[in-house]
Amino acid sequence: MAARSRRWFLGLASTIGYAIAACRSKTPPPEPSALGAPVGPYGSRSRFERAVRFFSRAAVPEETSSKTPLHETFGMLTPSSLHFERHHSGVPDLDPAAHTLTIHGLVDRPLVFSVDELKRLPSVSRLLFLECSGNGNTEWKGGAEPTVQRTHGLTSCSEWTGVPLSTLLNEARVQPAAKWILAEGGDACRLGRSVPLAKAMDDVLVAYGQNGESIRPEQGYPLRLIVPGWEGNVNVKWLRRIKLLDQPAMTRWETSKYTDLLTDGTARQFTFEMDAKSVITRPSGGDALPAPGPYEVTGLAWSGRGKITRVEISADGGRTWSDAELQLPVLPIAHTRFRWNWTWSGGEATLASRCTDETGYVQPSRQALTAVRGVNSNYHNNAIQNWKVAANGTITNGNA
Amino acid sequence: MAARSRRWFLGLASTIGYAIAACRSKTPPPEPSALGAPVGPYGSRSRFERAVRFFSRAAVPEETSSKTPLHETFGMLTPSSLHFERHHSGVPDLDPAAHTLTIHGLVDRPLVFSVDELKRLPSVSRLLFLECSGNGNTEWKGGAEPTVQRTHGLTSCSEWTGVPLSTLLNEARVQPAAKWILAEGGDACRLGRSVPLAKAMDDVLVAYGQNGESIRPEQGYPLRLIVPGWEGNVNVKWLRRIKLLDQPAMTRWETSKYTDLLTDGTARQFTFEMDAKSVITRPSGGDALPAPGPYEVTGLAWSGRGKITRVEISADGGRTWSDAELQLPVLPIAHTRFRWNWTWSGGEATLASRCTDETGYVQPSRQALTAVRGVNSNYHNNAIQNWKVAANGTITNGNA
Repeated sequence: MAARSRRWFLGLASTIGYAIAACRSKTPPPEPSALGAPVGPYGSRSRFERAVRFFSRAAVPEETSSKTPLHETFGMLTPSSLHFERHHSGVPDLDPAAHTLTIHGLVDRPLVFSVDELKRLPSVSRLLFLECSGNGNTEWKGGAEPTVQRTHGLTSCSEWTGVPLSTLLNEARVQPAAKWILAEGGDACRLGRSVPLAKAMDDVLVAYGQNGESIRPEQGYPLRLIVPGWEGNVNVKWLRRIKLLDQPAMTRWETSKYTDLLTDGTARQFTFEMDAKSVITRPSGGDALPAPGPYEVTGLAWSGRGKITRVEISADGGRTWSDAELQLPVLPIAHTRFRWNWTWSGGEATLASRCTDETGYVQPSRQALTAVRGVNSNYHNNAIQNWKVAANGTITNGNA
Repeated sequence: MAARSRRWFLGLASTIGYAIAACRSKTPPPEPSALGAPVGPYGSRSRFERAVRFFSRAAVPEETSSKTPLHETFGMLTPSSLHFERHHSGVPDLDPAAHTLTIHGLVDRPLVFSVDELKRLPSVSRLLFLECSGNGNTEWKGGAEPTVQRTHGLTSCSEWTGVPLSTLLNEARVQPAAKWILAEGGDACRLGRSVPLAKAMDDVLVAYGQNGESIRPEQGYPLRLIVPGWEGNVNVKWLRRIKLLDQPAMTRWETSKYTDLLTDGTARQFTFEMDAKSVITRPSGGDALPAPGPYEVTGLAWSGRGKITRVEISADGGRTWSDAELQLPVLPIAHTRFRWNWTWSGGEATLASRCTDETGYVQPSRQALTAVRGVNSNYHNNAIQNWKVAANGTITNGNA
């Protein structure tokens, strides 16, 4: 709270003024008089809650994505029920008692693990964001989507628990010729991605836990490859086999998809690490500020390369910037909640956030990003997002 | 992983030996061939998952508790759907659009806030455990319950988001005579607890968010008082008013309940802070070890006074102790996951964990605790929990 300005808090008086005024007309609800619901085995949210993942009608709804309502989430965590989805052939209905993970290819000792066997091995838990590299793909040529859910909703943050892949690979005895792994999912398309062996031996997990319980079906139940900081697609869901190879497998999802088309007509392949990115989630597109006065501006920042070290906010479209407060603890490769106290004077404004990560990398403007990448890319757009506040308080996408 | 012994990892060969043997008989499931389920608005867990909160049949099921299946959770977080419950008159069905929070009593400016007004104010998020002070009340006189869910399932850990209560109290202008607050819930019994003003002005939150979404109904929707590190009961759910007082209100829940009966017949009142405590969650009571060999022993430790600094494990009923590995980050007043590599030789064993917090306090044995407290208490049992492993691998409550 120390970083928050005293002046802003004095400004609160006007907000509280509404409360006092409202106090005279506002009647607290009647005192409760009847017993409520009893205890229960597995809870669900209030019937008054409406937040849902967003998805468009698609010809093949099993081959599409759904987006997290970032404007309706709090803190750093994403509820598992609202974690974004990206499926290439739908969510398989896997029985963990029948599911296995095979490790084969360039190993001396091919292995097949049951899920129960994996759960008996030494485990690790990490709070990590996962972001689809297609997040923000609507924004290359200007503000195409009206809300932060639709511009940035393909990122979510969970606590993942599982076995270090290095433990399994060591037991399988990887041969010297092996340089890559192919991870393949148990969905109908058998989605497969290649990952360099060095990363596989570093911090990759074979995860079975998400936010304290088993991974949700949409997130890969019962096993998911978790590749910290790398694009969502390589975090293979419904993981069924890992094959050791001397070169990448050149699957569909690392050739025709998930490559970045550049201005000279060539495509960049294997853009694994997700660059630092941030977005203001509240207030944001679709909100309407009821009156001039003090507002908390809040959002999320994250980097695939480590910790977020700084988030700056501009209310004038990038002419001036002020430091936001970062919610502690700031964890590497996790969503970091930031907050900034703003007093809206009632005129036009443009809100934007810009983050820096521990490597010193600064999130670029859209102009700076497209100068290098062009506007033909589909993936890896980490540009600054602008939200335009009209004089009447309505907020729209400000990526002109 | 550095702290894990090399010898134990070599022992893994026997585990992996099972996998290799099983590999010959184990057939990976058939390759998937049909599209799975499409994307959806709000997800739920797999139909194969069975973890549920435990509760006994009660004459009044609205006035009882349910316990978290700690043996089936991973990492530090508790899924909101499995967060323990303790209700005194059931879960009210509150409409957040009609709900208000009143601040009154010894203030110059009584205030009434709507939920939306509170959400506009500066917010804070914290990962915190909540523990009912009745957790472990079955264990004062020996091992009475068979599983860790039933001995220790009244603790859970969530990310809470809300407004610092100090912000609201400053705006209400607390009068010098005020020394305590009374926090009252919107349930039928209007559960109320008194909290000293110094704590109320320190780190208490009026929370509306839990694990990234709105607080669950069983946890106080739409508003809950979060009092970091203090017994669960003072974290008043369905919060409807805060009254500033010059002395504690002496409600039912701080006089006839939630006081500690001592050996001399007097009762200790206002035992607010939850002392350091730990428990092994896997393997634990009700489990059966399939064969001698290496096992990961894991559990949770927490302290209402700050960070856990050390967890030790004994496999011989407390004669010898070894340091467990703590999952980073270790956060103050949060569940801390610990892990220890154990090789079970196949004989009888007694597993126990003992934690230390940053104040230097060491979790006591049951003998040491009852020497001071006697065995008439219902609340605040933080003694070491023993799990007895029989020669055949079955595990039972070892609190002789």
